Amino acid sequence: MNNFEFYNPVKIIFGKDQLEKLATLIPVNKKVLMLYGGGSIFKNNVHASIKKALQNHTVLEFGGIEPNPHYETAIKAVDLIKKENIEFLLAVGGGSVIDATKFIAAAAFVEDKEPWEILNNHLPIKKALPLGTVLTLPATGSEMNSGGVITRIATHEKRAFGSPLVFPQFSVLMPEAAGTLPKRQVANGVVDAFVHVMEQYITFPAGAPLQDRFAEAVLHTLVEEGPKAFANPADYSAMSNLMWSATMALNGVIACGVPQDWTTHMIGHELTAFFGIDHARTLAIIAPPLYRHCLNDKQEKLAQYGERIWGVTGNTVQEKALAAIEKTEQFFHSLEIKTRLSEYTPKYEGTAEKIAERFTERGWVGMGERQSIKPTDVEKIVKASY
Amino acid sequence: MNNFEFYNPVKIIFGKDQLEKLATLIPVNKKVLMLYGGGSIFKNNVHASIKKALQNHTVLEFGGIEPNPHYETAIKAVDLIKKENIEFLLAVGGGSVIDATKFIAAAAFVEDKEPWEILNNHLPIKKALPLGTVLTLPATGSEMNSGGVITRIATHEKRAFGSPLVFPQFSVLMPEAAGTLPKRQVANGVVDAFVHVMEQYITFPAGAPLQDRFAEAVLHTLVEEGPKAFANPADYSAMSNLMWSATMALNGVIACGVPQDWTTHMIGHELTAFFGIDHARTLAIIAPPLYRHCLNDKQEKLAQYGERIWGVTGNTVQEKALAAIEKTEQFFHSLEIKTRLSEYTPKYEGTAEKIAERFTERGWVGMGERQSIKPTDVEKIVKASY
Repeated sequence: MNNFEFYNPVKIIFGKDQLEKLATLIPVNKKVLMLYGGGSIFKNNVHASIKKALQNHTVLEFGGIEPNPHYETAIKAVDLIKKENIEFLLAVGGGSVIDATKFIAAAAFVEDKEPWEILNNHLPIKKALPLGTVLTLPATGSEMNSGGVITRIATHEKRAFGSPLVFPQFSVLMPEAAGTLPKRQVANGVVDAFVHVMEQYITFPAGAPLQDRFAEAVLHTLVEEGPKAFANPADYSAMSNLMWSATMALNGVIACGVPQDWTTHMIGHELTAFFGIDHARTLAIIAPPLYRHCLNDKQEKLAQYGERIWGVTGNTVQEKALAAIEKTEQFFHSLEIKTRLSEYTPKYEGTAEKIAERFTERGWVGMGERQSIKPTDVEKIVKASY
Repeated sequence: MNNFEFYNPVKIIFGKDQLEKLATLIPVNKKVLMLYGGGSIFKNNVHASIKKALQNHTVLEFGGIEPNPHYETAIKAVDLIKKENIEFLLAVGGGSVIDATKFIAAAAFVEDKEPWEILNNHLPIKKALPLGTVLTLPATGSEMNSGGVITRIATHEKRAFGSPLVFPQFSVLMPEAAGTLPKRQVANGVVDAFVHVMEQYITFPAGAPLQDRFAEAVLHTLVEEGPKAFANPADYSAMSNLMWSATMALNGVIACGVPQDWTTHMIGHELTAFFGIDHARTLAIIAPPLYRHCLNDKQEKLAQYGERIWGVTGNTVQEKALAAIEKTEQFFHSLEIKTRLSEYTPKYEGTAEKIAERFTERGWVGMGERQSIKPTDVEKIVKASY
């Protein structure tokens, strides 16, 4: 096991009928900005319940945060915060709203520079507004971590950032609210959480059997409960287990002391930036060809994954590893998620070269758990995904 | 899954060569009291390394904290803290030192009442000194939770307490320092962590498959790595995995949204209070007869545990449950831990009645995950352990 540090101070409040706790979770003397997306919180009664819980608070609202939240939109919220002297941010919705809120919390204190520098040049975050979240969609895990991803429409860029200062103070997790989600979003949530685990697990054996088994626990649960929640989002039990699995997939616990490889995400972000493909679907497109390309490096963990999650058999480690990749693709397909880029866009030609070029420009020339994935490898992986 | 809240702000620093970080983890203007036990930290170089790391801090010391730490000793530390205006406590050692330090941190602010009231009558903890820990012995999980247990020698009482105010700010986990432990203490650590998991897992199925698998992940790792660490405490890999498993066993993660039954601990504490038996060994004495006594209530989870951890087979759920209990006893024996009270003391007669009487006096008349374990049941369980 490698040396590690772990710190996660997010208070989780999970389950039914928890929203009234917001009244005490947010100090009553703080001026609140509630941020949300396209308005689903008006249909599932969450908006009204929050307004009631915060009836003694001053609450302004900022709606219209997009999936793959836009930098341009975030900047509008920052302007509003400065104008209205907002003191607390409450993100209500899924990972996109939470990611945007984290970025806004930090961007509100950037002076003399463009806040984009946080994303483009790792401008250090020195201060951020306090924030809390109400989660109505299981997927990204953003409700219990300190990172986020923002898309700049003007330049087709999607970039990540993080800071301990943007940990939510609390997150209220509402499986019931997720019961009204379209099936497509449930499928996305299952695959997003699944690949989050894989990024922290499909590397090389690192003498960390507990972390391996925690990762497998999340994968197992997603395989068992994900399809039930997909078939019937209103199945409270299945949705609860999916939601908690998605949170545990990216709150740092399974990453303790083990190598990681976030290349699937890095490439996937480009597919979203270029084509607007749902984040989870970009992961389903890239993960299988990436595992095949990196088979020699990853085959021991792939085989272990295949045996423990899918019960695959085979004469060699490599046979088991390949069978595991096939099972993974079949799982994505079972959730009606297509796994080839050409199934999402007719304009896929040239994508591989463009992404490889961008990574070269950014100096991303040694990715993966062994720093061995070069832009030339990225090009091959993306081509194999066509 | 039940509604739940989860909050754990302890910063974990795990691995080799981490002690120099203490210099920045503790504000340099704070007057520190370092608390420790019988002096093992002088043999394994931990004391010298901490003194070096804190060379710019003012550090006083308080040694001699016993296993099953004594209330009487803790009060002496409280007197020292008040006299010397101590502002930060650093616990160095295992769970006993950490438990004592948490209690001392809170007791330092109790005015007009005896601090024993925190343990005896749940006197609310309103303030506590900040504290950090350096863990050199895997077992109790106290390094990453907000509870503790204190023994009053004068009255042979061992009582638990807890408050979010006594969460350590940080814990430095040192598997290397645990490499010099006597085998007896390693065995105790394995069994203590093992039963901690069981208390949160061997109840009834609660529709929480992720939590079940997390619990099983810890048990699996203890079964695999515990015997290696017992055979050779200096095996860094095995000791690391044991240490992290013991932390995860009781930091709240596996308890989220599931029923719990801490009866084994409650009875076990009495055996320590009466006979001075090592905490872990009291658990090994009580757990098997408790599971047999509560077989009807617990058999589904016992059978699942047996199948997943030990690969037991059987024609009925009950057969598998009984086989699982036997496997558990064999595991304890493999670590040279005896599982009958009469193997620890010749004076066991009357113990069952005395414990049942105490529980009745304290109003502990409905224990367990169904509040169905009465003092008469406790009496039978303890008798079955003779």
